[in-house]
Formats: sequence, structure tokens, C-alpha cells
Amino acid sequence: MMTIAETAAWFEPRDGYLLLTHRRPDGDTVGCAGALAQGLREFGKTAYVLHNPDITQRYLRFVKDYQAPDGYMPEHVVVLDTASPDLFPKNGNGYTDAVSLCIDHHASNTLYAKHTCLGKEYASCGEIIYEILTALAGGISAKSAEHLYAAVSTDTGCFAYANTTANTLRVASLLIEAGAPHRELNKLLFRTKTRGRMKIEGAIYSGIEFYFGGAVAISTITRDMMESASASEDDVDDIASLPGSIEGVKAGITLREVTSPNDCKVSVRTSPSVDAHAICERFGGGGHAMAAGFTINKTIPELKEALLEALNDFFPPA
Amino acid sequence: MMTIAETAAWFEPRDGYLLLTHRRPDGDTVGCAGALAQGLREFGKTAYVLHNPDITQRYLRFVKDYQAPDGYMPEHVVVLDTASPDLFPKNGNGYTDAVSLCIDHHASNTLYAKHTCLGKEYASCGEIIYEILTALAGGISAKSAEHLYAAVSTDTGCFAYANTTANTLRVASLLIEAGAPHRELNKLLFRTKTRGRMKIEGAIYSGIEFYFGGAVAISTITRDMMESASASEDDVDDIASLPGSIEGVKAGITLREVTSPNDCKVSVRTSPSVDAHAICERFGGGGHAMAAGFTINKTIPELKEALLEALNDFFPPA
Repeated sequence: MMTIAETAAWFEPRDGYLLLTHRRPDGDTVGCAGALAQGLREFGKTAYVLHNPDITQRYLRFVKDYQAPDGYMPEHVVVLDTASPDLFPKNGNGYTDAVSLCIDHHASNTLYAKHTCLGKEYASCGEIIYEILTALAGGISAKSAEHLYAAVSTDTGCFAYANTTANTLRVASLLIEAGAPHRELNKLLFRTKTRGRMKIEGAIYSGIEFYFGGAVAISTITRDMMESASASEDDVDDIASLPGSIEGVKAGITLREVTSPNDCKVSVRTSPSVDAHAICERFGGGGHAMAAGFTINKTIPELKEALLEALNDFFPPA
Repeated sequence: MMTIAETAAWFEPRDGYLLLTHRRPDGDTVGCAGALAQGLREFGKTAYVLHNPDITQRYLRFVKDYQAPDGYMPEHVVVLDTASPDLFPKNGNGYTDAVSLCIDHHASNTLYAKHTCLGKEYASCGEIIYEILTALAGGISAKSAEHLYAAVSTDTGCFAYANTTANTLRVASLLIEAGAPHRELNKLLFRTKTRGRMKIEGAIYSGIEFYFGGAVAISTITRDMMESASASEDDVDDIASLPGSIEGVKAGITLREVTSPNDCKVSVRTSPSVDAHAICERFGGGGHAMAAGFTINKTIPELKEALLEALNDFFPPA
């Protein structure tokens, strides 16, 4: 395990970096890769980011200037925000055993890299990269700050999620001072909905059902709804959090029809008083105390009946 | 005009404060009043907040411990986040000419108070109160920090609005370090929707119409929709921003049926390339370049026709 100072010192004498992001890349992994590539280049190094085939339009801007050319032979592979080699994108699998350094904030990191800089207490990996670049170069440029603002803000839901800490806000403040265009980025990342997202939210809100005196909210997403909203997978990102965000709801449950009409994916989000994992365990699934799930071969009406039956044990009559 | 240091010094020798919030109180005015009352009491002063009859349940918790008793005779009236005496709550009108100090961040402040501490560059009045309390007492308590976190976060839409600055995030970070329960407050203030809000959003999203190649989005809120959603005025707070938040939309227009079926209120929100004021001026209304409105005696279909006709001039065929 390396500290931030040791990690900065590790970069200093070396060169020829290739930076990897994780599968289904989010703003944190992509923003970290863009910022580190930019910062290393400003420090006189050669640094590229491995193209991630899963990247969406939304996040491409943060790494597009650093894409590794075909045939680039790196001296050091550095992996960002990625807890295990299982999460490498397909075209990164060849590097599984050749990772010089992993910089991450996930407690579940499997320590697969030769060196690891792991900050479990950080809400975003972006906060760690900020410290490393500052230690390396004494400050950061507006371009690095832009990429890192995307990292820090997206991993904390624009500072509204429960993982946000005083340090998250401190770093975000310093990034704005360094020139991050936070107004433009906030509009792009948090205050713009696609039409598909808008339509699927409309359909969900119109159809949410309440049970157990309003303590349970069940939302349903059928394949028909997805089709008529022309909604993509991007459009339903984090959509399982919607029913749980309604006043009074202690268990927000999302039923999603997948592949065939009889295959359903269930996501359960709960407040601290209700054990989401225990609910899902009844159906062969599991997860965390406040966020769990399972898949099942039932139609939506069958599934709803079975779920409500099971929920009687978690919401006993007063 | 007084600086922050002068304002802190003004409080020091005086006593017997009554703090006023503005009409239709938001988190900033209420959070500032609660924090200043708490901070002044910790400093050994007598300080109360005048009850605001418009206050909603959401914000009551930040001032409920400081409500002025009947017959309290203040020596000094201090008004918070209030640009002019027109914005006093009804029961505050008697104090219009007796305001010792106004602390505000609105550029439109009419300088009606004997002394004014005006920080136009601050996104929230809460940031100014933070500086004053820190100057007065060398730091702030967890209770003051809680109230100020509500002030700073609500006035900036949880740090996502364009008014957010590096200082906003710096202060929010220091408030969390001082003990503000930001997780609980973020959940309460930003991640909880009422059922009425959910239903009205669902109905709006399902009915939004697009024109001019998607550059114009028109949402309609009828009295029937409000009734069937059991939605209150609180539930439609800031709802005019919804159509403008959809990808590609340059003018988001909200038509709202009020009082009679032939009276409509129109809100226009635009991106910088479209002049909202000029659009509304055509119908006898006006406002700002990116947010304007008007009221009109037309049915929704009549109004839509007239609007689309007028919009031809703002969105000429390519």
C-alpha cells in the first residue's frame, strides 16, 4: 500500500504511462484518467488513456484528448477507480497481470496491482488524484481541474449523496478556484434530462403503487414502457432510486421486465430501518442492508403478489 | 454599508435582537435567522426570530427554537436575506422604519435599513452569516452549522445552480466539519419528493410537447392535473424549470391554468441564445433574459396557438 506522497514520488522518475478505466465507465473513473493523463503530460511525461469501448457520449469529452494510439507500448499500466480485474473493460484484459499501480477508493479492492494507493475514506477517486497531482506538481491546471470536477461531482450526485464528506466539498471548491467550469458541467451532468429519461420517469411516476400505508412503493418498468419512451440503458441509470425518494417510503422497489416477459429484475432500496438484503434473500438474491436485488422467472403480476406476501413479515400490522 | 468585520463588531456591544425573515420564506432566510439567533445566544445575547406566518413544515425546524414570545420588546431589529421592505411578512410591516441592520446578498437591496451588510458576490446569505459568526465568536457550533447548511445548500440547489461559487463549497465544507448533519439534510431537502410532486411531475413529463425541432418544449399544468395529483403550491415550486432541463431544449415553456379555465399563467425559461423577456413582452409580460412570464385570458389551446405563432419569429426555419 502506498500513501499519496509515495504515489506522487513513484510517478516522478518513471515514464510511459497507460491509464485504464473500468467497465461501464462512470464520471469518476473517466475524470480521474483524463486528469492524471493531463497532469502527467504537463509534468513532461508520456501518458495515454486506453480507449474504453463502453464509454458514453456524456463522458467522452474528459478523455478524448488522451486516447492511446494503436501499438502504444507502455512502460507502466495504471488503473483508476477499479476494485478488481473483473471490472476491466474487455480490451484491458491483457493487462490484468501487468498493473504497476492501482489508485482506488473502493474498500473491496482486491489488491491485484503491484502497488496500490487506496483511500477508502474518500467519496470519489477524484479526490485522491487531486492530492496526488498537487503533491507531484504543486498545483493543478484548469484542464485537470475540469476532469476532476466531473469525477468528484458525479460520484457524489452533485454533493447530495450520503457518501459526500467535508473533503469532497473542500476539493470541489479548490477545483473551481483552479478553473473547473462548474456551471457548464453542472448543467450538462445534473440539470439536463434526455427525452427518453423524461418519458420513462413520467411513466414510472404515473404508475407507482403504494402499500403498507405508504411505507412501500413499487414501480414497474416493462419492456413496452422502455420501447414507447425510446429509452436506452443510459436513460435508466440509477432509476431504482426513484420510488425510495418519495416522502414516507421506507422500501422503494423497482420491478423491471428483462429479455422475456417472464424474466424480472428486482431492485430494493430501503431506509435504515428496513433490511433490503433480507427481503431479497427470500428470493435467492441479496446485496447490502439498504440496496439489494434479485432476478426471478415470474410475470410482473405473479412477482408483485409474491413480494407483497413476503413484505408482510417486514411491515407487520401495527 | 458595513463590512463583515464591522458587522460582527456592531453586534458585540449591543443586545436584545429580533430577527426577521422574508415573505414566502426559503431555506436561506430561515437558515440565516436560526443560525444568527443560535450564535448570538451562545455569545450571551438575547435573540429571537419573529414568527413568519408563511413558513412551511420543511423549514420550521431551523427556527422553531428561537420564536419570539408575545410582547417581546427588541432593542434591535435585524433583517436577513430581504432586498426591500415590500418583502417583509405581514406581521413584520410594523418594523419597516425601525430596522437597525440588514444582512443580504441581493444586488437589488434598496438600502432601507440603518446599516446594511451587503455581499452581492455571495451565492447565499448563509455564507455571509458564516463569516460574521466566525468573526464574532471565532467559530460556530454544530447547531448554527446545521441551520447555515440549510441556507447555503437550498439557495444553490445543492450546489448545482449557476450561482454556486468556490466560496459556497468552501463554506459548506467548513459547516460539515463544524458538525452540520449534511447527510440527513440532503436527504430531507433534495432527495425527497412529496407524492403530490411525484404525480404532477409524472403528468407533466407524460404530456410535454416539442416544437421547432425540439428547441421548444411546452408543458401544461391544468387545474384538473393539480386536483388529481392532490398537489399543493409547495409541490409545484420551481416546476417551470422542468421543460427547460430537457436535452436540446432552448425555450422551456410552462402553461398553467389558474383560477378560471380561461386564465393562464405562462413561464418561459430559456438558454442564453433565446430572449425570454422579448417573447413575453409580445403578450404584455416580461422579466429577465433567461426567465420571464406573463398572464393572459385565453384557453390553453388558444394560448398555445398564439404562442407558437409568436415563436416563429424567435425560431426561424433554417
